[in-house]
Amino acid sequence: MAFSSSNKTILDNAIKAIHERIFFAQYPEHPKAYGEDGAVKGLELFNAFLNKEFTELQQDSPSNWASEEVSPFTQEKLGIKYPTYDVGKTLIRSARAMNSWKNVSADDRADVLIDSLERISKRFNEIAYATMHTTGQAFMMSFQASGPHANDRALEAIAMGYEELSRFPQNVVWDKPMGKMNVVLHKEFKAIPKGIGVVIGCSTFPIWNSVPGMYASLITGNAVIVKPHPKAILPIAIVVAEIQKALAAKGLDPLTCQLAVDTSDKLITKELCEHPLVKLIDYTGGSAFGEYVESLKDKVVFTEKAGVNSVIIDSVADINPVVQNLAFAVSLYSGQMCTAPQNIFIPATGIKNGDAHLSYEEVVNALKEGIAGIANNPKMAAGTYGTIQNEMTLKRVNSLKKMDAVVLLDSQNVSHADFPNARSISPLVLELDSKDFGIYENELFGPIVLLIKTKNTDESISLAKDMTQKHGAITCAAYSTDESVTAKIIEEMESVFAPVSLNLTGMIWVNQHAAFSDFHVTGGNPAGNASFTNPEYVCKRFVWVGHRRVA
Amino acid sequence: MAFSSSNKTILDNAIKAIHERIFFAQYPEHPKAYGEDGAVKGLELFNAFLNKEFTELQQDSPSNWASEEVSPFTQEKLGIKYPTYDVGKTLIRSARAMNSWKNVSADDRADVLIDSLERISKRFNEIAYATMHTTGQAFMMSFQASGPHANDRALEAIAMGYEELSRFPQNVVWDKPMGKMNVVLHKEFKAIPKGIGVVIGCSTFPIWNSVPGMYASLITGNAVIVKPHPKAILPIAIVVAEIQKALAAKGLDPLTCQLAVDTSDKLITKELCEHPLVKLIDYTGGSAFGEYVESLKDKVVFTEKAGVNSVIIDSVADINPVVQNLAFAVSLYSGQMCTAPQNIFIPATGIKNGDAHLSYEEVVNALKEGIAGIANNPKMAAGTYGTIQNEMTLKRVNSLKKMDAVVLLDSQNVSHADFPNARSISPLVLELDSKDFGIYENELFGPIVLLIKTKNTDESISLAKDMTQKHGAITCAAYSTDESVTAKIIEEMESVFAPVSLNLTGMIWVNQHAAFSDFHVTGGNPAGNASFTNPEYVCKRFVWVGHRRVA
Repeated sequence: MAFSSSNKTILDNAIKAIHERIFFAQYPEHPKAYGEDGAVKGLELFNAFLNKEFTELQQDSPSNWASEEVSPFTQEKLGIKYPTYDVGKTLIRSARAMNSWKNVSADDRADVLIDSLERISKRFNEIAYATMHTTGQAFMMSFQASGPHANDRALEAIAMGYEELSRFPQNVVWDKPMGKMNVVLHKEFKAIPKGIGVVIGCSTFPIWNSVPGMYASLITGNAVIVKPHPKAILPIAIVVAEIQKALAAKGLDPLTCQLAVDTSDKLITKELCEHPLVKLIDYTGGSAFGEYVESLKDKVVFTEKAGVNSVIIDSVADINPVVQNLAFAVSLYSGQMCTAPQNIFIPATGIKNGDAHLSYEEVVNALKEGIAGIANNPKMAAGTYGTIQNEMTLKRVNSLKKMDAVVLLDSQNVSHADFPNARSISPLVLELDSKDFGIYENELFGPIVLLIKTKNTDESISLAKDMTQKHGAITCAAYSTDESVTAKIIEEMESVFAPVSLNLTGMIWVNQHAAFSDFHVTGGNPAGNASFTNPEYVCKRFVWVGHRRVA
Repeated sequence: MAFSSSNKTILDNAIKAIHERIFFAQYPEHPKAYGEDGAVKGLELFNAFLNKEFTELQQDSPSNWASEEVSPFTQEKLGIKYPTYDVGKTLIRSARAMNSWKNVSADDRADVLIDSLERISKRFNEIAYATMHTTGQAFMMSFQASGPHANDRALEAIAMGYEELSRFPQNVVWDKPMGKMNVVLHKEFKAIPKGIGVVIGCSTFPIWNSVPGMYASLITGNAVIVKPHPKAILPIAIVVAEIQKALAAKGLDPLTCQLAVDTSDKLITKELCEHPLVKLIDYTGGSAFGEYVESLKDKVVFTEKAGVNSVIIDSVADINPVVQNLAFAVSLYSGQMCTAPQNIFIPATGIKNGDAHLSYEEVVNALKEGIAGIANNPKMAAGTYGTIQNEMTLKRVNSLKKMDAVVLLDSQNVSHADFPNARSISPLVLELDSKDFGIYENELFGPIVLLIKTKNTDESISLAKDMTQKHGAITCAAYSTDESVTAKIIEEMESVFAPVSLNLTGMIWVNQHAAFSDFHVTGGNPAGNASFTNPEYVCKRFVWVGHRRVA
């Protein structure tokens, strides 16, 4: 094998981007960059998967076939059958594949992994439809999150891993002067992979949240077993299939990366995680299972769990673009993002709006109107909200209506022109007081927005900090025109390891974390113990071992 | 503050050395490099400490004074009294100091920390006597291990930490083209320290094993509390005092690094470790307490625990230098090193010695004679063995004599010309069979050497690997002239994350790990979960937090 020069260029640019942290995207986020008729063809290709066995994986002899995906847009079963295997068979295949993969050079690993990303990029449109009809995301978000943005995060993990693997020389002569003579040793430094990695996927971002861990484990020489959510398999199945093809094309064992499908009534996640051969676990999902995974002995675990994200409104230059920005941020994909704001803290004394003053009620009303503005625009509503992935989310919204809280904006059914059966609702907006922590200190995943009246900004900051410390937060949006308040917000929030997005207006929302620049999740609070993609995220997947021999 | 140019040069050289991993030493290991009469003055300075209060710490209002150090050379109490404090007081001081220290720039932290090393280097001779009369090490080892070698490892941690802190820009403009317009964000990336670090020292290497964690936590902005072993305080007390002086000299809070002394009858380690303010723990010592520390929730823990180090003898070019090398390696500091070999596996079929053959019995006899050669040379014995730090180690040796094993060489009292009461013995050498795993699978800390008869080299490798996987190992020495056997040893041992030192003869022993080149402990097997000083060792002490604001 030789490192393809185009892949080497991609890698070098990605490493440079990680260090510069300015805007960089290897994979353009516009569907047209992947062909004028890409979306049309993508839909055809997606439809061709329906009601058939998924046969792209190079994993023979399945013990059974599983199928339980349902489109949140059509409410119909996709009917795609995926092969299932005994956990023992999957693990032994993984261990055997790793025996070869661990000896593949970092250059060759990077080459074949970047190859796989290039292959995946040619399928972004069908992946977008696969994502749409499993996660409920609207098409554009499906395309971007599961396509270019995910590929960029995967490339980021490859680049960070490659840099760590290349950080120390493989061989050196250590020549120590000892007065009349020298001691001379040949030393060899090897990055030994930890062992099989299991990547546990989630139902809302089956690719974006899985590929960083997959590629971080693979670049550092570990074999990977991907355990998708039983209701969101197709997107990541296509990705795994392309990784297997890229491996096979270079004469490497495609089982270096396997898909391990299970069913809701017989989950294999614990059996996989607890097996002694499994050394690395990447997990995205609810906190309870996340804490179980984190508690496992002798495993290196990377988690992204639930969190309660806050918005602190202290003062604004102009309330209108702020309201527009926040209304979109809370509406996007119906709040089913780990980065979505939930608790919006507003001082009872009101806020400064440029040189004017807005009362608390005026701020609340503006936000309510802003959120309603999207809900009342059918086309915008459908495209922004997408649909609800999980029936439980609907139940959560309904149960909250029964709480003793002021319903500022009721959640209503949203019609999608192309999908009469779409499970889609507008956000429920409740008004709470800061004493109602029993409600707002829970992660209320889904289209639920809480406007919380505080005594003043100090209390807002204090509550946002407390929520983060106790329950975790991945993001914090803050609005203030006062530099001393801003400094306090930043100081307090970074003391609980939450990043602050300040005064966002226009075409950028707190929900978005960009590859090569933003660290996604800090790893410092209960929302997760790991970060895409800091050095720790790759370092912990291998061990430096230094051998010595007398020259 | 401005980064002193001499300190900057030291830092730059250290960073370069870490990357090159060839021989580098900032601090010469020859006592004479620190003054012709350094040792004489050092002894005077050490004697001046005896039977007095230790008053160099800038920690006022002690609640009590503790004193229980006893010289293993004289068996007399040192009588040095150290201030003790309520854990609560120590923690609140630490938290307050950290509030300032976390805002000191990486440059200024590196500057003041390197200052402290320069100050410490001026006291290497008195530190050597302090180490000698607490750990029982002979003078030269005390000088090197607690002096230049420890300072080099501390500098290594500073350099690695500084590099990680400087890895990403502090401020960038992120300018994303969005078709007709651009989204422009100012981003700020901050390395936020995790929180107070506790460093738990051991009785045999009170400085060498503590300074890497201390300096790694300090350079990354954390305050540090050093909890020494109650019987080995003076060496690290001098180090902490010099760090405090270096801090104070720059107008920084000396309580950024505190010494927290306790007594054997009222240990404070658990209270410190379990306190919510403590986020980082560095530990060197026995496995049971190490596993307790590792099990603590919400702490980042770095451990070096017990291990069982193996020697695999397969074939040699010349048995004589091999025997000399191994005899010294097992004798040095009476086996009280975490890197000391314990189990020497020898095939029953004998070994190749150049073109000749040595029977198993001949190899055993040669090793026995080699080890006896040191024991029978009084001056060499005293200088090599030093003394026994802990009474328990003597008891362990005596209890092993009662086992049903062939005593090849009995342990005998060793006289030290200058110290008639020295607690010093020669190694006990036992002959075992591979089936006696009940004995050799324990870490038998101290002057205990086990020669173990195996079926063949394959069994030797298999046992060395098993011991490492089950009980941990920091080193593995191997002797083979056969490249295919060598390759197998390396492959098998690195699969359990143990480094192999191959065919060491002459003035280099498997016990020695050099700063800037060797990773000490891999972190991959039960001997410890961390490595001096790999990137992970510093990365895990802080969290990257990225704030964003609209430009």
